[in-house]
Amino acid sequence: MRTLKLTLAYDGTNYVGWQRQLNGVSIQQLVEEACAPLAGEVPSVAGASRTDAGVHALGQVASVNLATALPAAALQRALNFRLPPDIRVVDVEDAPRGFHARSFATGKAYRYRLATTPVLPPFDRWFVWHAPGQRDVQTMRRAAELMVGEHDFASFQAAGSAVNGTVRTIHRLDILDLEGELRFEVEGDGFLRHMVRAMVGTLAEVGLGTRPATSVSAILAACERGAAGMTAPACGLTLVSVEY
Amino acid sequence: MRTLKLTLAYDGTNYVGWQRQLNGVSIQQLVEEACAPLAGEVPSVAGASRTDAGVHALGQVASVNLATALPAAALQRALNFRLPPDIRVVDVEDAPRGFHARSFATGKAYRYRLATTPVLPPFDRWFVWHAPGQRDVQTMRRAAELMVGEHDFASFQAAGSAVNGTVRTIHRLDILDLEGELRFEVEGDGFLRHMVRAMVGTLAEVGLGTRPATSVSAILAACERGAAGMTAPACGLTLVSVEY
Repeated sequence: MRTLKLTLAYDGTNYVGWQRQLNGVSIQQLVEEACAPLAGEVPSVAGASRTDAGVHALGQVASVNLATALPAAALQRALNFRLPPDIRVVDVEDAPRGFHARSFATGKAYRYRLATTPVLPPFDRWFVWHAPGQRDVQTMRRAAELMVGEHDFASFQAAGSAVNGTVRTIHRLDILDLEGELRFEVEGDGFLRHMVRAMVGTLAEVGLGTRPATSVSAILAACERGAAGMTAPACGLTLVSVEY
Repeated sequence: MRTLKLTLAYDGTNYVGWQRQLNGVSIQQLVEEACAPLAGEVPSVAGASRTDAGVHALGQVASVNLATALPAAALQRALNFRLPPDIRVVDVEDAPRGFHARSFATGKAYRYRLATTPVLPPFDRWFVWHAPGQRDVQTMRRAAELMVGEHDFASFQAAGSAVNGTVRTIHRLDILDLEGELRFEVEGDGFLRHMVRAMVGTLAEVGLGTRPATSVSAILAACERGAAGMTAPACGLTLVSVEY
């Protein structure tokens, strides 16, 4: 039995998210089913991030145990042959026995794209949040700085989530001011459910002047979802990479 | 009655092309139907380029005569409200009376994207031709140079086309060697049916060593479609802009 580390890119538009669900097709299910002919049964595939419905990935990492002697490159081709074109295995590596993509992850990087043009470019429509309007990017950056570091992010967690602790460390939160687009790049040791989207939604409100940059400190202190801003739509979010 | 110049961007994936067809939904039909409430009838909309099924546009230009007093910005909003999100009106301007988008066009620019990575990035799957493999870009550029200038492009025209003359002038044909992608940028005074795609298909064969760069001269002289290479798939092609 080998432990394999799969790196996956996907367009999440047509899926209920990474995790198996009763109400639709998940990415996890398709990857597990693609592995089945190599395993003789449908194996369990663990993903580093449980990306939501509509969220994309450039570098999701998944682990699976398979009894196969095929070289990594042949495994990659076999999986891509069975997967639909919106899910691609971009790398396959042998991992140390016992490697688990979620529990071994030490950090993740996400990207969020917010289109600010009056008219949404049709090519981008599944990959950005379209929210036209002028935003004060300098003020947004001051607010973003207050999110960097170790904090209790309970106010930025989807209501009703049950996890062990809500303290996380954000290493970096940059806002790139591109033509017609604000691009958020965030790295941290871990993320709560909907956390990036709630951070972006809050920063977008700061940019419009709806709430001041300094309000971030009070939001963090409140430890209550209602204190922060809206949850930005899933389609703007991409899991870029996972660190180990 | 006003003559309007519309600039359109669209994702051509889900359409039978620009021009009205009996076998499916065209972009022309949807733009004409979006204009109808402003015109009191379904007006005729002329497009500068009859883009094929699956071909995209960043700057298609269309002309239409409408009896409306609405300001251009309000017309743009009204059209975008009625059009699906994969077709966007990016600009509306008043044009001189009698302006016709196709017959007044003096030049067009196209872009063609060829993905050369072993695995196709899922985000790009509707916007590139995926043809993995190493290509000799310097040799392709020498072949491309032979296509620049005024030539009879009959060998690069879809078989069975009936047009007035097959002589066209190519002003520029650049090949950008990007990471995992070759991008062709071509400008000319006009293009025959499938001409860009046949040029790209031929250059791709030159890049693989299937035919020498110098063969382009003989292909042009032959004035016969069979002399040139394959027609590259529609999905890689985008109409970038139209000159007047």
